[in-house]
Amino acid sequence: MTNTNPHCRQFQKHLSHLKVDGYWVSHISDLFYLMGYGAEGCWGLFGKHRAALFVPMLAVEQAAALAKGFEIIPLKKLSEAYAMVVDYARQAGWKTIGYDPSHVTEAYILGLRKASGSKLKWVPAPGATTPLRVKKDSKELKALRGAGHVVVQGFNYMKRIARPGMRECDLAAEYESYIRKHGATKASFDTIVAAGKNAAYPHYITGNKILRKNEMVLCDIGALVDGYCSDLTRTFFLGTITPLGRKVYDTVARAQKLAIQAVQPGVKAAQIDRIARDEIERAGYGRRFIHSTGHGVGVEIHEAPWVGAASKDVLEAGMIITVEPGIYLQGWGGVRIEDTLLVTRTGHEILTK
Amino acid sequence: MTNTNPHCRQFQKHLSHLKVDGYWVSHISDLFYLMGYGAEGCWGLFGKHRAALFVPMLAVEQAAALAKGFEIIPLKKLSEAYAMVVDYARQAGWKTIGYDPSHVTEAYILGLRKASGSKLKWVPAPGATTPLRVKKDSKELKALRGAGHVVVQGFNYMKRIARPGMRECDLAAEYESYIRKHGATKASFDTIVAAGKNAAYPHYITGNKILRKNEMVLCDIGALVDGYCSDLTRTFFLGTITPLGRKVYDTVARAQKLAIQAVQPGVKAAQIDRIARDEIERAGYGRRFIHSTGHGVGVEIHEAPWVGAASKDVLEAGMIITVEPGIYLQGWGGVRIEDTLLVTRTGHEILTK
Repeated sequence: MTNTNPHCRQFQKHLSHLKVDGYWVSHISDLFYLMGYGAEGCWGLFGKHRAALFVPMLAVEQAAALAKGFEIIPLKKLSEAYAMVVDYARQAGWKTIGYDPSHVTEAYILGLRKASGSKLKWVPAPGATTPLRVKKDSKELKALRGAGHVVVQGFNYMKRIARPGMRECDLAAEYESYIRKHGATKASFDTIVAAGKNAAYPHYITGNKILRKNEMVLCDIGALVDGYCSDLTRTFFLGTITPLGRKVYDTVARAQKLAIQAVQPGVKAAQIDRIARDEIERAGYGRRFIHSTGHGVGVEIHEAPWVGAASKDVLEAGMIITVEPGIYLQGWGGVRIEDTLLVTRTGHEILTK
Repeated sequence: MTNTNPHCRQFQKHLSHLKVDGYWVSHISDLFYLMGYGAEGCWGLFGKHRAALFVPMLAVEQAAALAKGFEIIPLKKLSEAYAMVVDYARQAGWKTIGYDPSHVTEAYILGLRKASGSKLKWVPAPGATTPLRVKKDSKELKALRGAGHVVVQGFNYMKRIARPGMRECDLAAEYESYIRKHGATKASFDTIVAAGKNAAYPHYITGNKILRKNEMVLCDIGALVDGYCSDLTRTFFLGTITPLGRKVYDTVARAQKLAIQAVQPGVKAAQIDRIARDEIERAGYGRRFIHSTGHGVGVEIHEAPWVGAASKDVLEAGMIITVEPGIYLQGWGGVRIEDTLLVTRTGHEILTK
């Protein structure tokens, strides 16, 4: 049985660079990326010429329908599962198996090592799928563009219907309902609608506060299309904007625009962060920009490359990043403006336009 | 600073049973349970007389607002975070720290061990919070009853509006919008609407299949209220039911009823599974009941106790379980019926009635 998944075939070639015979994965988004299906309790095992998906009984038929061309091995008990992985690897003649220590529980890796005895060596290979996942192919870009398109439509809808008297959670519910009717599978993360003072929390948990006239409304929203995410933040004022609101908003907008203008292949991700941060520092709000400027987006809403001060990543064509500076003033509120961008050969394309 | 969280105070007393001075947690639902706030990248550190929440910069203020009475320690870089945990523990005079190997990545625990050198000993304590989390207090029961109430209302709404020509995802979107307007924070897991043949996949991923006349529609839905989940499955036929549909439906309904009748303190969870399975086996569908009969519900949609053949759990008053037998026939469809129950001192209370 031979899989035709292009990501998997690329990863199988990549195994020789990792200096392992096989690679074991429990991370759901890696499984989806490599095999077309991933769920809690599923494991993937990859060698250069074969690959298998170990699946809990109840999901076997669903997995077979989606992870086409892979051996599907039903898992009954966790206690037997470790030995099944070891048997599979030994029958394939493998001696070393890589895994990602940041995406495996200690219990799993101890179980696998114990079942292996001295027969198999387990080798940490952090971020082994990152070099592949970080650069998107044309099929992924189609999904990402779709996710970018629908999130913008969804925001336009929110802005049309937002009225004083609505609750944050009402507006969030309307958004999620809208995007599902317009091509999204679901929201790509918990919808944030933060009104007034609540906008001062970058990762606010949407609640039932009532939207009031002249208040700011920060919407951090995403959509999932064919397994790929989009990420968009807009902040608007429900009526008249105060002078402070205007100053903060314009500062963030300027910082975002300058940072976006710099996005092109060869630029360090840390430099994009620096540009946005400089502009906000110039306005005197440096200490109120309390997160990094952005992150990669793909199967996961947060993935490589990382657009922050400590990032070592360099932008390349085919990468997807967000640019999302913000200013947060406790007791007043906050402003964040975010778009999702594709790095192109000549510069960038805003996917959330 | 002293926290007044009753779960945390109970857990702090429980530490002596675990034979550790402190306990470290990265599992989001444990953090929510013990501190009132948990998010990706947050860590809790608990001793008998003090407890701290380590929080990424961008969430510090949100954490302080929700995790009342705890020390909030801002985390800047992951590289420094390990040393900060070790320093905190040493200043508190602790020598041994417990953790749950099933809910910590290998990378985290290796980072913590390395930063500790020989000063601190890290001790695996699997499921340390389970004895507490498994039995719900009155505040939790209030939330669970609320979650049970709104999911039933949501299902009644789905049944009222379901029409041939709608897509699965439309019905899912309407459900989620409805429950958010009726007191739920959001769905407690990805809404499953599986029509016709798709109902044969127990963990079907809701898609855009169009509902047709006389087809079965399996709805596996949940609601989150004040951080607690509900779980409900209903299967109905959009028109006339076939003789096979009737036979399968009645078998599952009988199995579920018999299993529910047996729910009371002192009964083994495996026995509940056995009762449902026996009834389905008698009808000749034993091999098509491809999952366990149920699971606990609380902060997480799947948690202890486990209602399956291999479970060692014994039901006690205050536990919450689902009872959800099903029969799945590939190429035809499936039927599952599920309720969420509270085990009471005298028997049980169905929360999804």
